[in-house]
Amino acid sequence: MKIKGNIIIGQSGGPTAAINATLAGVFDAGKKLTEGKVYGMLGGVEGLLQENFIDMCEKITTDRELELLKRTPSSYLGSCRFKLPEPVEGNEVYEKLFKIFEKHNIKGFFYIGGNDSMDTVKKLSIYNDEYKKTDIKFMGVPKTIDNDLVVTDHTPGFGSAAKFVATVTKELVRDSLVYDLKSVTIVEIMGRDAGWLTGASALAKGDDCEGAAMILLPEVPFDYEYVKNRVAQLMEEGSKSLVITVSEGVRTKDGKYVCELGSEKGTDAFGHTMLTGTAQTIATMLKNDLGIKTRAVELSTLQRCASHIASATDISESFAVGQAAVKAASEGETGKMALLKRVSNNPYICVTDTHDVREVANLAKEVPQSMINENGDYVTEEFIEYVRPLIEGELSQLTVNGLPQHIKL
Amino acid sequence: MKIKGNIIIGQSGGPTAAINATLAGVFDAGKKLTEGKVYGMLGGVEGLLQENFIDMCEKITTDRELELLKRTPSSYLGSCRFKLPEPVEGNEVYEKLFKIFEKHNIKGFFYIGGNDSMDTVKKLSIYNDEYKKTDIKFMGVPKTIDNDLVVTDHTPGFGSAAKFVATVTKELVRDSLVYDLKSVTIVEIMGRDAGWLTGASALAKGDDCEGAAMILLPEVPFDYEYVKNRVAQLMEEGSKSLVITVSEGVRTKDGKYVCELGSEKGTDAFGHTMLTGTAQTIATMLKNDLGIKTRAVELSTLQRCASHIASATDISESFAVGQAAVKAASEGETGKMALLKRVSNNPYICVTDTHDVREVANLAKEVPQSMINENGDYVTEEFIEYVRPLIEGELSQLTVNGLPQHIKL
Repeated sequence: MKIKGNIIIGQSGGPTAAINATLAGVFDAGKKLTEGKVYGMLGGVEGLLQENFIDMCEKITTDRELELLKRTPSSYLGSCRFKLPEPVEGNEVYEKLFKIFEKHNIKGFFYIGGNDSMDTVKKLSIYNDEYKKTDIKFMGVPKTIDNDLVVTDHTPGFGSAAKFVATVTKELVRDSLVYDLKSVTIVEIMGRDAGWLTGASALAKGDDCEGAAMILLPEVPFDYEYVKNRVAQLMEEGSKSLVITVSEGVRTKDGKYVCELGSEKGTDAFGHTMLTGTAQTIATMLKNDLGIKTRAVELSTLQRCASHIASATDISESFAVGQAAVKAASEGETGKMALLKRVSNNPYICVTDTHDVREVANLAKEVPQSMINENGDYVTEEFIEYVRPLIEGELSQLTVNGLPQHIKL
Repeated sequence: MKIKGNIIIGQSGGPTAAINATLAGVFDAGKKLTEGKVYGMLGGVEGLLQENFIDMCEKITTDRELELLKRTPSSYLGSCRFKLPEPVEGNEVYEKLFKIFEKHNIKGFFYIGGNDSMDTVKKLSIYNDEYKKTDIKFMGVPKTIDNDLVVTDHTPGFGSAAKFVATVTKELVRDSLVYDLKSVTIVEIMGRDAGWLTGASALAKGDDCEGAAMILLPEVPFDYEYVKNRVAQLMEEGSKSLVITVSEGVRTKDGKYVCELGSEKGTDAFGHTMLTGTAQTIATMLKNDLGIKTRAVELSTLQRCASHIASATDISESFAVGQAAVKAASEGETGKMALLKRVSNNPYICVTDTHDVREVANLAKEVPQSMINENGDYVTEEFIEYVRPLIEGELSQLTVNGLPQHIKL
């Protein structure tokens, strides 16, 4: 069955290396399962409210362009951080949106994003069910490097970020061991409340890599004395160089972010306040207390846009979950989020499914206690088995002049 | 002709993604052009002084291991930062080294590194010429991501670092453009005195990428007022999001490092001094002065060890230059540095050669004025033509469980 009209796709929230693969999946299935056009909102719902959208078929015209889209990081269509108001009858934002839907004969609304984006899908779907009763299908498609969405086994985008994190952790470990002197490298990884991505640094460890000495997640209260003593102990036991990975969001027992421990912020020559990150704060403290060389490395935005080392598994699942959202809508589903369901781990088999978006939005999935070791300073084998399949495989890069090629509007 | 005895190889200075490819080249040619063994110093000359070395043939036994070595970042044999004393007669360090050479029948000494390492080769060669008159061949093999060695067209290791810098600049530009709000991202790139690596960010620009708005090199005095006004002007002209790349070593007209502009450093809760980087300093200043969102990204050690995106050209040249050093020594050369000589740029043809190491050591090659634009805020086409061939080609990764495999001692 085909969707009888046009559909529109939007991207929202922070970019990932795989969000455009999902866009490619929605677009690809949309072309096949829609009688009308496939529109793309420019800058998410915020752009849509300005009737700012394009006909995707005019932009992505060849298979090569579709492949480039899969390999381009960040959000091709642009993004926004726009929270819809509560869906009360007659609200002007909703009325405006539904007028736009009607004007452009939009019968399918696909929104790719994280928690806030699922909230948008939920609210639109509620507003439609309660007040508009149109036949428009509202579907959410997950993405986030944080892997903190419930119901889905994992989120598209997480596997590629995890692959980058694990790869550079391996490289940083090799780098740190080069001199015959005691040193600690603190690597700061994204994750305000969930430690999935930081935990992925555990994959670095293997026959060819010593791995991280500690992995500090926001799920465990940060205890500086413990960290300091553990570093001192490992050094005493003969360790030369240690790498510690830490989530940006680690907090002390009383809820203080570690970066706030640098309480008296510095000012520059012009009196401006300077900020210090979590890794730098810990590095400075360890350096001063233990008298060893320390270094802070922030993976920063690199980790969410490193499409040059995307996981082939992630890109292909991200594409599939986009397709699945369209297929479900074409079969009459609405108010759902497409998702990934792990059927088995060995061999790794993962299929797509859908779930009521109302049971997804505004909930966060943290790393469970069973995946964190007793000392709270590393992940367990269960965690590693969960994450390992998600980083498998490399995508052939389409390079020009030695650089991965991207596509832009 | 074969070298009649054993040879020994060492690695020194900071690691790169290609220094082990050079080691592989010396080892490979060494096996073929030496009658004896191929030793590897553990931790450079410092390790050698403790007679700390291995028989490389016992470690690298298969072609796969040789390929892994080429793809492993950092220094396989470990490194040191050890400066030899002046080569005056009877100096105990030299006497000890030459005793070790004699004891282990070492007839070839190969040292892979940057400026300081070439200084080591120079001094050993002088000491030999003047006081010992042995037939040991002393050869330097260049490496440094900084590309600041004279005589050689470029340094092994630079191309891979440049490829990483250009690739992530592309990704960061895409990432920065995702929201519809004005922002500036400052990317800090290694380079204390020479801006070669920062300049390589210019390669990001192309049909599919807006590139960096400004490229700030240490060869040009840093003028904050100019940068601020230029950002304000570009924003006024309609730019939404800008990426500026900057060398860590940029200095103001009066020789002050930009990171020192954050003059009153902050202290943490325990009274420890906190440091702020160059990019963070500029980002904070722009944010406060222009009221726009800014972000600082430090590429940090990632840029020198990102073997997962090594340049195939660089790895193959690094290997070749290692081989060339051995071949030259086997033909009687000594006191030389092996080097790369560009025969033509279009098509790119590069061969190996050697040059008197005394004319290399302790000299630095900066980016010449002809490669910097008039405003001093970008590189010229001449620079781009020089760097572009060096990042060409990708190395097939030998991956296990989704991660590039390395080799360690």
